[in-house]
Amino acid sequence: MKVLVLHGPNLNLLGQREPERYGTTTLADIDDRLTSRASERGASVECRQSNHEGELIDLIQAARGAFDGLLINPAAYTHTSVGIRDALLAAGVPAVEVHLTNVYAREPFRHTSYLADVVVGRVMGFGASSYLLGLDGLLDLLHTAPGAP
Amino acid sequence: MKVLVLHGPNLNLLGQREPERYGTTTLADIDDRLTSRASERGASVECRQSNHEGELIDLIQAARGAFDGLLINPAAYTHTSVGIRDALLAAGVPAVEVHLTNVYAREPFRHTSYLADVVVGRVMGFGASSYLLGLDGLLDLLHTAPGAP
Amino acid sequence: MKVLVLHGPNLNLLGQREPERYGTTTLADIDDRLTSRASERGASVECRQSNHEGELIDLIQAARGAFDGLLINPAAYTHTSVGIRDALLAAGVPAVEVHLTNVYAREPFRHTSYLADVVVGRVMGFGASSYLLGLDGLLDLLHTAPGAP
Amino acid sequence: MKVLVLHGPNLNLLGQREPERYGTTTLADIDDRLTSRASERGASVECRQSNHEGELIDLIQAARGAFDGLLINPAAYTHTSVGIRDALLAAGVPAVEVHLTNVYAREPFRHTSYLADVVVGRVMGFGASSYLLGLDGLLDLLHTAPGAP
Amino acid sequence: MKVLVLHGPNLNLLGQREPERYGTTTLADIDDRLTSRASERGASVECRQSNHEGELIDLIQAARGAFDGLLINPAAYTHTSVGIRDALLAAGVPAVEVHLTNVYAREPFRHTSYLADVVVGRVMGFGASSYLLGLDGLLDLLHTAPGAP
Amino acid sequence: MKVLVLHGPNLNLLGQREPERYGTTTLADIDDRLTSRASERGASVECRQSNHEGELIDLIQAARGAFDGLLINPAAYTHTSVGIRDALLAAGVPAVEVHLTNVYAREPFRHTSYLADVVVGRVMGFGASSYLLGLDGLLDLLHTAPGAP
Amino acid sequence: MKVLVLHGPNLNLLGQREPERYGTTTLADIDDRLTSRASERGASVECRQSNHEGELIDLIQAARGAFDGLLINPAAYTHTSVGIRDALLAAGVPAVEVHLTNVYAREPFRHTSYLADVVVGRVMGFGASSYLLGLDGLLDLLHTAPGAP
Amino acid sequence: MKVLVLHGPNLNLLGQREPERYGTTTLADIDDRLTSRASERGASVECRQSNHEGELIDLIQAARGAFDGLLINPAAYTHTSVGIRDALLAAGVPAVEVHLTNVYAREPFRHTSYLADVVVGRVMGFGASSYLLGLDGLLDLLHTAPGAP
Amino acid sequence: MKVLVLHGPNLNLLGQREPERYGTTTLADIDDRLTSRASERGASVECRQSNHEGELIDLIQAARGAFDGLLINPAAYTHTSVGIRDALLAAGVPAVEVHLTNVYAREPFRHTSYLADVVVGRVMGFGASSYLLGLDGLLDLLHTAPGAP
Amino acid sequence: MKVLVLHGPNLNLLGQREPERYGTTTLADIDDRLTSRASERGASVECRQSNHEGELIDLIQAARGAFDGLLINPAAYTHTSVGIRDALLAAGVPAVEVHLTNVYAREPFRHTSYLADVVVGRVMGFGASSYLLGLDGLLDLLHTAPGAP
Amino acid sequence: MKVLVLHGPNLNLLGQREPERYGTTTLADIDDRLTSRASERGASVECRQSNHEGELIDLIQAARGAFDGLLINPAAYTHTSVGIRDALLAAGVPAVEVHLTNVYAREPFRHTSYLADVVVGRVMGFGASSYLLGLDGLLDLLHTAPGAP
Amino acid sequence: MKVLVLHGPNLNLLGQREPERYGTTTLADIDDRLTSRASERGASVECRQSNHEGELIDLIQAARGAFDGLLINPAAYTHTSVGIRDALLAAGVPAVEVHLTNVYAREPFRHTSYLADVVVGRVMGFGASSYLLGLDGLLDLLHTAPGAP
Repeated sequence: MKVLVLHGPNLNLLGQREPERYGTTTLADIDDRLTSRASERGASVECRQSNHEGELIDLIQAARGAFDGLLINPAAYTHTSVGIRDALLAAGVPAVEVHLTNVYAREPFRHTSYLADVVVGRVMGFGASSYLLGLDGLLDLLHTAPGAP
Repeated sequence: MKVLVLHGPNLNLLGQREPERYGTTTLADIDDRLTSRASERGASVECRQSNHEGELIDLIQAARGAFDGLLINPAAYTHTSVGIRDALLAAGVPAVEVHLTNVYAREPFRHTSYLADVVVGRVMGFGASSYLLGLDGLLDLLHTAPGAP
Repeated sequence: MKVLVLHGPNLNLLGQREPERYGTTTLADIDDRLTSRASERGASVECRQSNHEGELIDLIQAARGAFDGLLINPAAYTHTSVGIRDALLAAGVPAVEVHLTNVYAREPFRHTSYLADVVVGRVMGFGASSYLLGLDGLLDLLHTAPGAP
Repeated sequence: MKVLVLHGPNLNLLGQREPERYGTTTLADIDDRLTSRASERGASVECRQSNHEGELIDLIQAARGAFDGLLINPAAYTHTSVGIRDALLAAGVPAVEVHLTNVYAREPFRHTSYLADVVVGRVMGFGASSYLLGLDGLLDLLHTAPGAP
Repeated sequence: MKVLVLHGPNLNLLGQREPERYGTTTLADIDDRLTSRASERGASVECRQSNHEGELIDLIQAARGAFDGLLINPAAYTHTSVGIRDALLAAGVPAVEVHLTNVYAREPFRHTSYLADVVVGRVMGFGASSYLLGLDGLLDLLHTAPGAP
Repeated sequence: MKVLVLHGPNLNLLGQREPERYGTTTLADIDDRLTSRASERGASVECRQSNHEGELIDLIQAARGAFDGLLINPAAYTHTSVGIRDALLAAGVPAVEVHLTNVYAREPFRHTSYLADVVVGRVMGFGASSYLLGLDGLLDLLHTAPGAP
Repeated sequence: MKVLVLHGPNLNLLGQREPERYGTTTLADIDDRLTSRASERGASVECRQSNHEGELIDLIQAARGAFDGLLINPAAYTHTSVGIRDALLAAGVPAVEVHLTNVYAREPFRHTSYLADVVVGRVMGFGASSYLLGLDGLLDLLHTAPGAP
Repeated sequence: MKVLVLHGPNLNLLGQREPERYGTTTLADIDDRLTSRASERGASVECRQSNHEGELIDLIQAARGAFDGLLINPAAYTHTSVGIRDALLAAGVPAVEVHLTNVYAREPFRHTSYLADVVVGRVMGFGASSYLLGLDGLLDLLHTAPGAP
Repeated sequence: MKVLVLHGPNLNLLGQREPERYGTTTLADIDDRLTSRASERGASVECRQSNHEGELIDLIQAARGAFDGLLINPAAYTHTSVGIRDALLAAGVPAVEVHLTNVYAREPFRHTSYLADVVVGRVMGFGASSYLLGLDGLLDLLHTAPGAP
Repeated sequence: MKVLVLHGPNLNLLGQREPERYGTTTLADIDDRLTSRASERGASVECRQSNHEGELIDLIQAARGAFDGLLINPAAYTHTSVGIRDALLAAGVPAVEVHLTNVYAREPFRHTSYLADVVVGRVMGFGASSYLLGLDGLLDLLHTAPGAP
Repeated sequence: MKVLVLHGPNLNLLGQREPERYGTTTLADIDDRLTSRASERGASVECRQSNHEGELIDLIQAARGAFDGLLINPAAYTHTSVGIRDALLAAGVPAVEVHLTNVYAREPFRHTSYLADVVVGRVMGFGASSYLLGLDGLLDLLHTAPGAP
Repeated sequence: MKVLVLHGPNLNLLGQREPERYGTTTLADIDDRLTSRASERGASVECRQSNHEGELIDLIQAARGAFDGLLINPAAYTHTSVGIRDALLAAGVPAVEVHLTNVYAREPFRHTSYLADVVVGRVMGFGASSYLLGLDGLLDLLHTAPGAP
C-alpha cells in the first residue's frame, strides 16, 4: 500500500504561522509521524507540499497508477479549486481530506468545499493527529474495499 | 479516561437498514470494537442509543462530571437539534462528532449542522471505522490538552 | 394487507382545536372510517397517535416486516424531522403522506417538507377524506406493484 | 354534479412517453375510468386535453356556471402559468390538482407551483389512480360543502 | 395618432370576475371610454383581448408601422412572458403598461415583471381609470417626443 | 377636494439636476400645472418639498383631517423610509405615488419600495405628466369612492 | 388567574451551565420568585421543565381550560419546533415568550423563531427578571382583555 | 437613577392612529405612567418624542453622562437607522428597546432591526405596558450591574 | 438523416428586429443555408417557426418517429417553458439548442434555461452561423452515436 | 481648488466615542490637519458635520458650483441613504468617500453602500490619515482631469 | 488567420480520464484534427495545454498581436478564474469557449462562469467536435467582422 | 522601513491593456514613483509582479521578517484567492490593498473580496495615485503603531 500525502498552500509555515491556532509542530514532524505509522501498518507514504494549485493538480494526476490512496490537506484550495476536484476525479485514486482545525468553527467561507463530496472520508479538528487518523481511515478502507474506493 | 458514546436515531437498525449504504456491521459490533480499543488505550467507554431528542439531551447533561469526553453520532439530529447543541455547551465535556458515511456526498440538507462548530473534531466516511478513529482522536486530544477541550 | 396509520403531534385534539379550520370530526371518527374502508377492501389498519418525534420513529421502525404499508399525517414534524425521514427510509415500507388542510395555502414554512420525496404519494386538502383517499391510493399501489413501492 | 377534467401539455402522449416513469395506461383509459367512477357516484365528467396555455384558460373560464367542480392535471403549466391561476380564481369553480408522479421526488423546479394555494386539494404519486382519488375527493367536498369550495 | 390597446388573459371576464376586487365595469365599457377619450384628443384606438401568449405576440409584432403607440394590460403574462417582452422590443413601438389594481398590494409574484423596464411608463391601482390615464400619458409622451419613446 | 402634494429629496433641483434624465421643467412649473389642473376639476392643491424625512413625516401627519388626498413623489425615501410608510398609514388619507422616470428601468435598489403596497395607485415614467395623471387618478378615486380609499 | 410556566430544554442546568452567560440563579429560585410575584397580584403559577419536545406539547395541550395564561421560555425549541407552535395555537391560551439573554446578540440561528408571531408578547435580555416582567405583562393583558388574547 | 425615554416617529399620534391596533392611550398617558412608576422606584424619567432621525441621534448623544439608562421605542427607525445604532454605541448608556405591538406578528420587514443586538433587553406586545415593563427591567439591570450594561 | 428545425417566438422578424443586434439576415436566408448544408451532408431539414408555446410543443411531439434529430432556437421560451422541456423529453429525439447571440452577455434572466440540461449540445454567439454549427454538431453526434443521443 | 468636507452622524463625538476603536483625535484636530494640507497644496477646505440626513443633502446640493470637489465620511448614512446618493449625482461635484476604520472588518451590514459606485475613490482604515489621503487623492484627480470627475 | 488553442487543467488526461464521460479520443487527436481543419480553411492553429492558471494567463497575454483569435476550453478555471477573464479582456483577441460535455447537465457549480460574457461564442456537448465547431464559428466571425469581435 | 509592493495578475500589461479604463502609465512608471516617494519618507520599496497565485503566496510568505509592510494590488485574485488571504495572515506583516479603479463601480463579482477584512486599509479609484496614497497610509500606520498593524 503506497499513499501520497499532499499538503496545500501555507502549510510549509506550520509551527511558525499563528502558533496559538496551529501549534508548534512542523510539517517535517508530521511527515515523520506519518512515515512511522504507515510503516507500522506495512504501508509507505510519500509527502509533498506546494503553494501552487497547478502543481498540486500535476501531483494528483501523477498519482494515478503510482499510489493506492491519497491523503490531502488542501488548505485554502479546499474552498476555491475546481481544478483539484477534477484532478481527484480523473486520477481515480481514493482520497481522504484532513484539516488541522475544525473548519466549521471558523469563517463561513471555510464551510464550503469543492472537494468534500468526491473524497471518501474527512477528518478535522485534531491538530497533527488529523493526519494520522486520516491515514488510518484510508488504510482501513483500502483493506476492506481494495478494488473500489 | 471515561468516554460516553452516544448513537442517535435509527442507528439501532444498523446492519438491517439500507445495507448497501451502511454495511452489515451492527451497533453491538461497533460497541464491542470501541470497548476493546478504549481498553487498549487504558480508557473505558459506555455506549447508549436513543431515537428521542430529549433523551439524548438528558444523557449529555448527565455526562457533566461523569465522563472525560463524548463521542457522538447525532444522525438525523445533526441537522435539526439546537437542544443537543445547547446540551453539549452546557455539559462542557469535549465532544467528537462521527458519521458512518460522508454526509457531503448526500442530500444538501445533510450538509448543514447545528453541532459542527461546538465539537472539537469531526470524522466521517469510514463506516464503522469512523467511530474508532473518532475515539482515537478524542483520546489524543484529552492527553495533549487534558484541561481544555 | 396490513396498514399502519400514524397521526403526528396535536392531532389528538382534532375536533376541539381550531374547529373553523379542522372541523368537528375527531380522531376516533377518522380511525373508525379508516377501519371500515380497509375492511371493505379486505385489508386492516392499526392506528396510533403521538406528540413525540422519538415515539413516531420507534413506531415506524417497528413497522418493518409487520405492515405492508404506512399512512402518515406527520403534522408539524413534516417540516422539522429528518429523523422520521430516516426511519421511513430504514423501514422500507411504502408510505403515503396525508394532511387535512392544503398546506400550500398556509404559512410558507409549511410548504417545505423533509418527507415529500421519500413517500410514494401525497393527499391534502380534503379534511378527513384525505385519510380515506390516501388509504385507497396506498392499497391501489400495493396491489399493482406489490413488490416495489 | 358535473365535473370538468383538464389534462395539460404532453399528457396526450401518455402510454408512449417515458413508460418507465408514467406506465402504459393511455389518456383514453384514464378518461374511461373517470367516466365510470363518476357514474357510480351519480355524477358526470367531461374530459379535455390541450398543449396550449391559452386554450386551457379558455376552457376554465367556460366552466363557470357549467360545471360544479374541476379536476386538473396542469402538468408543465403548474410551474409557469399565472394565467391558469387567474382563470381558476375568476371561474370560481372548486378545483382539485392531480399529478401522476410525486413531483417532490423530481427536479426542484417541479416543487414550485402557481396553483397549489388556489386549489382545494392536491393528490399526487398514485399514477392513474391519482385522478380517481382526486375525483372522489372533489365529490366528497362538493357534497359536504356544496355552497363553498 | 393610432394606439393599439391590448388586454391580456382573463380580462374578457371583467365585470363578472371577482367584482369585489375588479368592480362591475366590463371590458366593452373600458374600450368605449378609451375610444371617446382618444377621439377627444384627436387620436384613435383599436382594442383587442386574448388569453393566448402567442396571439398577443402576433398582435404586438403587427403593430410595427401600423400604430404609433401601445397600451397594454398584460395581466398574468406580466410575470411570466419573455416572449411579450421580446415582441415589444422587436416592434419598437412605445408602450405603456396598465393594471386595474395596485399589484404591489397583492401576492409577491405579482411584484416581478418581465416588461416593467421595457415600457415607457406604468399606471396602476385606479381601476378602469388606469387605462384612461395610461392613454393620456402615452399621448403626452408621443406629442412631446414623437420620434423617440 | 383638497390635495396635498409632497415632493421628496432632491426634487428642488428639478430642471438643473441631470437634465438629460429629468428634463428642464422646474418644480415651480409642475406646481403651476397641478394648480391649474386641480382648479379645472374643482379641486385645490397645496405643494411642499423637503429633503428631510422627519419633515415629510410631519407634513403627512398634518394632512389628517386637513386634506382629502395626497399626491407624493417620495424620491429617494421610496426605498428607505419606513417612517413615511407609517405616517401614511397613521394619517389615513388616500395617497398616490408618482415618479418622473420609470424606476424599473434604473438601478435594482430602486425597484424596492416601502410605500408601494400602502398607496392606492402608482404612476411613473411620464416626466412631469406623471404628476398630472396621478392627480387625475386620485380625484377619480375620491369621486367614485369618497368614503374609502 | 392561573398561569402555567414552562421551561424548555437545558434550563434545568441553570446556575451551573455557562454561569458567565446565565448567572448563578437556579431554576428553583426563579420558580420561587414567580410564585411570590403571582401571589402578590392575586394569581398563581405552576412551573414545569422538560428537555422533551413531545412532553412540552403534552403540557401545553393540557393547559387548555386549566390555565388562563402561559409563560414559556422555549429555549432551543424556539428555533426548531413547529409542534410547540401548533400546540400553542391549538390550546388557545394566551402565551408570553421569555428569554434570559438577548437572543439577537447571539448566533444568527437564534434570531429565527417558530413561536414569535403566535405569542402575545416577548421579553428578553433581563436575566431572571425576564420571567417576572413576562408574568407582569401577561397578567396586565389578561386583566385588560380577559376574553381575547 | 435617571432614565431618558425616547419615542420615535409617528408615536405622537398615539391614541388617534389606527386605534384598533394601538388602542386609545395617548403618549402623554404613557409618559405619566412612566413618571409615576419611576418615582415609586426612586428614579426619574425625562420623555421626548421626535419624527426626525437626526434629532433622535442628537438626544441619544446628549444622554452620555446625563442619564443612567435609556428606554427607547424606535418605531420605524428600528428597521432603517444605522445612525441610531451608532449613537447608542457611542453614548455608552444601557438601553432597552420597547414596542407596543409584537412586531413579529406583522410585516416581514419589521422583523429586522439594526438595534436589537446593541440593546440590553427587548419588550414587545403588551401595549402601553411594554414601556412600564421595559422601565422595570432596565432599573433591575442597573441595580444588579450598575457599572456594566 | 432528417432534422426538424424549430424557430421560437419573434424569430420571424429576423432581419427587421433590432438589426444592430441580430443583423440583416432573414429567417428564410437561414433556412436556405441549412437546407444546403444538410444536403451536402446527405441529410435533409424541415424548418418551422411559431410564436405559440403550444404549437411548438405540438411540433416537437410530432417529431417522434418522423425525424432523427431536432435543431431548436427556443428564443424567449428558453427561459419560461417547462412544457417544451417536457415535450423534448417525451419525443425522445436528440436536440441541439442554438442562439444567434451569446445569451450570457445579456440580461440575467437570459442566463437561466429550462432546456439546457435536456439537450445534447448548445451553440451560441455566432449569428446565423450558430444554426449551421449546431446542425453540423447534431449530424456528427447522430453519426457517431446513432442509437443514443 | 475648493473642497467641501462633510462629516456624517456621530462623528462629532470623535475622540470620546469608543476611543479603543477610533482613537483620541477629535474632529477639530482632523479639520485643522485638512486645512493645513489643503493650504500646502494651494487649495482650501470648508468643514461641516451633521447628524441629519436632510441637512447633509442640503449641504451637498449647495456644493454645486461653489466647490470643486467633495470629501465625505458618510458614516452610518453610507449604508442607508439613497437621498445622499441622489444628491451627489445631482450636485455633479466629484466626491471621495473616506472612513476612519476598515468597514470590511466590521459587521456585514457595513459592507454594503449606496454611495460606493457614485464616488470617484474610496479610502479607509487609516484613522485620521484616511481624510488626508482622501484629500490628496481628490486633488490629484482634480488636477489630472479638471473637467471630468 | 492564426488561432491559439488553449486546453485548461486535466485535459492532458483526455482519453484516460473517465472514458465513459469523455470518450477515448486524446488531446493529441484533437490537436491533429484542429490542425487539419484550420489548414482546409487557410488558417493555422497553435495548441497548448496547462494545469496552471498563471501559465494560461501568460499564454493569453502573449496572444495579443500574435494571434487573430483564441479557442479555449478553460475546464475547471471556467468557474473560478477572474484572472483568465481579465487576461482575455486585456489581450483583446476574440475568443470562443468550448466544452466537451454539456456543463448544464452536470453539477450546479459548473453552470456559473467568469468567462461566458466576455467570449464571443460558446459551443458545448459535442465531445471532440465541440472544438472543431468552435474553430469554424471563430473563423466565420473573423471573416465577417475582421476588425471587431 | 522596508515595504514590499506586489502587483497581481495582468498588471504587467498596464499602459497597453484597456487604456480608456487604466490610462497609459506603465507598471515601471508606478514603481519609479513609489521608489521616489518611499525615499522621500526615509523608506524603501521592492516591487514584484506575478500572474501566478502560488508565486504571490511564496512572495508574501518570504516577507515575514524581511519587510515592515506590504502594499498589494491583488487584481483578479482579490475575488478568488483564499490562499493569498491565508498567506497574509501567516506572514503577519501589515498590508494595504490598492486598486487603480473603483471596483464598486464595476461588475458585482468585483465587490466581493477574500482580503478586505485582513488588510489594515484600502485605497481605490485614484489610478496610479492609489499606490502612492496607499504607501503614504501604510507608512503613517507603521509610524504611529510600529509594533501592531
